[in-house]
Amino acid sequence: MTNALVGAALAGAAFGGAAAQNGGPAAGPKVETFTLENGMDVVVVPDHRAPVVTHMVWYKVGSADEVRGKSGLAHFLEHLMFKGTKSHPAGEFSNTVSELGGQENAFTSYDYTAYFQRVPKETLKTMMEFEADRMTNLVLTDDVVLPERDVVLEERRSRTDSDPAAQLSEAVSATLWMNHPYGLPIIGWDHEIAALTREDALAFYEKYYTPNNAILVVAGDVNKEEVRALAGETYGKVARRADPPPRVRPREPLQVAARRVAVADARVRQPSVSRVYLAPSYRTAQGDDAYALDLLSVVLGGGPTSRLYRALVVEKGIAAGAGSWYGGSSLDDSRFVVYGSPRPGHSLAEIETALDAEMQRLIDGGVNMDELERAKTRLIADTIYDLDSQASLARTFGSALTTGMDVRDVIDWPERIRAITPGQLVEAAKKTLQLRQSVTGILESAPAGDRT
Amino acid sequence: MTNALVGAALAGAAFGGAAAQNGGPAAGPKVETFTLENGMDVVVVPDHRAPVVTHMVWYKVGSADEVRGKSGLAHFLEHLMFKGTKSHPAGEFSNTVSELGGQENAFTSYDYTAYFQRVPKETLKTMMEFEADRMTNLVLTDDVVLPERDVVLEERRSRTDSDPAAQLSEAVSATLWMNHPYGLPIIGWDHEIAALTREDALAFYEKYYTPNNAILVVAGDVNKEEVRALAGETYGKVARRADPPPRVRPREPLQVAARRVAVADARVRQPSVSRVYLAPSYRTAQGDDAYALDLLSVVLGGGPTSRLYRALVVEKGIAAGAGSWYGGSSLDDSRFVVYGSPRPGHSLAEIETALDAEMQRLIDGGVNMDELERAKTRLIADTIYDLDSQASLARTFGSALTTGMDVRDVIDWPERIRAITPGQLVEAAKKTLQLRQSVTGILESAPAGDRT
Repeated sequence: MTNALVGAALAGAAFGGAAAQNGGPAAGPKVETFTLENGMDVVVVPDHRAPVVTHMVWYKVGSADEVRGKSGLAHFLEHLMFKGTKSHPAGEFSNTVSELGGQENAFTSYDYTAYFQRVPKETLKTMMEFEADRMTNLVLTDDVVLPERDVVLEERRSRTDSDPAAQLSEAVSATLWMNHPYGLPIIGWDHEIAALTREDALAFYEKYYTPNNAILVVAGDVNKEEVRALAGETYGKVARRADPPPRVRPREPLQVAARRVAVADARVRQPSVSRVYLAPSYRTAQGDDAYALDLLSVVLGGGPTSRLYRALVVEKGIAAGAGSWYGGSSLDDSRFVVYGSPRPGHSLAEIETALDAEMQRLIDGGVNMDELERAKTRLIADTIYDLDSQASLARTFGSALTTGMDVRDVIDWPERIRAITPGQLVEAAKKTLQLRQSVTGILESAPAGDRT
Repeated sequence: MTNALVGAALAGAAFGGAAAQNGGPAAGPKVETFTLENGMDVVVVPDHRAPVVTHMVWYKVGSADEVRGKSGLAHFLEHLMFKGTKSHPAGEFSNTVSELGGQENAFTSYDYTAYFQRVPKETLKTMMEFEADRMTNLVLTDDVVLPERDVVLEERRSRTDSDPAAQLSEAVSATLWMNHPYGLPIIGWDHEIAALTREDALAFYEKYYTPNNAILVVAGDVNKEEVRALAGETYGKVARRADPPPRVRPREPLQVAARRVAVADARVRQPSVSRVYLAPSYRTAQGDDAYALDLLSVVLGGGPTSRLYRALVVEKGIAAGAGSWYGGSSLDDSRFVVYGSPRPGHSLAEIETALDAEMQRLIDGGVNMDELERAKTRLIADTIYDLDSQASLARTFGSALTTGMDVRDVIDWPERIRAITPGQLVEAAKKTLQLRQSVTGILESAPAGDRT
């Protein structure tokens, strides 16, 4: 259910809402943007509820930008970014955030890598100094790189290799994407992580961690001019040192074959079936299809009032859970997922048949205005609940801007959601929910039995 | 069943046999090799049965060496190699071969691209002159490149896009290979072929079509010294102009999920089920596993006396056909395939169950010496029948040398096949025939029904 463009709604909905309360048109949030001379984009999202700021730097590079054979490199570099510089040895940045009572985090996705701190507003410049410093002065020696590689390998072992559901998920992705690098795991394949070197990390850093490939997002108790001044004194001094290549990844061919992937493992306690459809993203969709798919995910499988939950869990009583989600926020195509897990005594085949029947019923029978309106209210409201988190606010803009959207798209999101018609929703469902462009993933509790 | 290393046997078996007739040990063929000063390898396979020669140039580059997003480039360049040079305009080379009553061909695979002529022996030098000329003097203008791209697109449409079995095969490959470029079609994805340019082709040509990346194979009524002299006067004058990168492709992770792919199409008249297992190749296998897998493919599914045919077609009468094959000749890992097609009134599920039962029976019950000896005799004999074709003779060495084998491997092949024990065969079957590293492909005649 997590979805950066659902996240995106939060800003648009909330600020739009505020503007509407003032009696004007839905004017959107007071988001301000500008660009430093070295090419670094800056987004300022004023949020004056408390004297804190969320400071994020987003690099327009993720695992899908890696060279084949070097999977995991973007994520590995994210780890290495905490290894210190000449002026600030490893640990100093994190200790500073911690002493200020702040929080920090970093994450790598297919399309972006981001670094985050939430701190008292008066320490914003300190954060900028640290972050600008490691944008250009990172020091990597084998003494720190090689042990960190073991940390990443262990992370992979504990999160993926020892979890049948994660193994299935990885195989489903590798199967869904016949050509596009989204088929490779963000953390990387074990044998390729093990071969990553200091030189690989440095080359990736030099190629992509340049200010003209970065976006600064500051949300919090600041205004544009304050941020402009501070950013100019810190990030503004970082020289542009590379021109990253255009983000053109191999596209999928027309998919024509339904695929199935199964993992059977003694450790599985709750079997499940999921169907992953290749779907357009907000960036790649025609017309308003991505908006329609976001609503479809709510109508079909968003929570206990959704069609799948009512049919499989409540009415038929065959499923312990069922739902759907759509991840529309990606630079290239994305996925729409439906899933269900059987109650004891019911089979995965029953669940799959019931999922299919509900999808077919929606396509054949359509949705009525009431149902669609409830979904719109729910989808937009969900995002407003998120608004209390300043981090979500900042994340919304960072993820949008690194996946091919702009600030306007974020601001206009609620309005375009509200405009979707039942016909558009059904049309998007018809186009997307096609077996020939899907993978069905089966997770079973039967003992593995290596063959047959 | 076509398999270059099965092909490879032909030379070894035949020449070895000839040596044995002379009372000596199986000494192998009188294959001679040398290297020109510019790095071009030369293989001479004397064959004096008729005054003809087979002249081949093999480039150590195939579709698996393409950059992602440029699928089809190796094959496209193969087409463009017939577009002429300054000294020999388009058509002149082919017309010359034709006027001599000769044959010509060219082909692109995952690991190599090769050009072939079979002509009267006295015209060998002419062939070398033409081939050496287009190794370095190819002229490409948009006037010839763009129409040829349409030819390739049409080739793809007629061979793949309009054939459900070919569509399934492409999707099975894309599914089997989670990381390795063997998952991409040799001919390329439609949308990527359509975007290939003259510049792409020329850059690929400059990078890979250099004498130090090529192997000349001459089979026929010539000896080493004649070939050395002619090659020196022609190919020897081509300058080395690039150093192709090491052929290190992304490797597969440990595969842990069984996958299924289905295509249902009204045009399918004969439904079928096939199971493709990830298998080691001659180059990547441990010990003698590849030899054992070649024999396994005969025991299990090589023709009407094989286990699968006897069980499914003859005894149970449920199948119209059934068999297996192994493609061991590749630079990286390969595949082992079993398949069957139902008779009317029998289901694909029945066929699949029966295939599984026969594989399990072999693993549990083993094979006896008699059965294995028959398979060895058959496999080696099959290759001898091929010997009448001088092209096969040349192809054997070209494909071996471009997929990481050497002349010795080819010559020793029959002897190593003869040494495989029943235990080795069963062990290789156990290791390879594991669902978790397989894709099951279903081809059905039911109307497509785009979704559900």
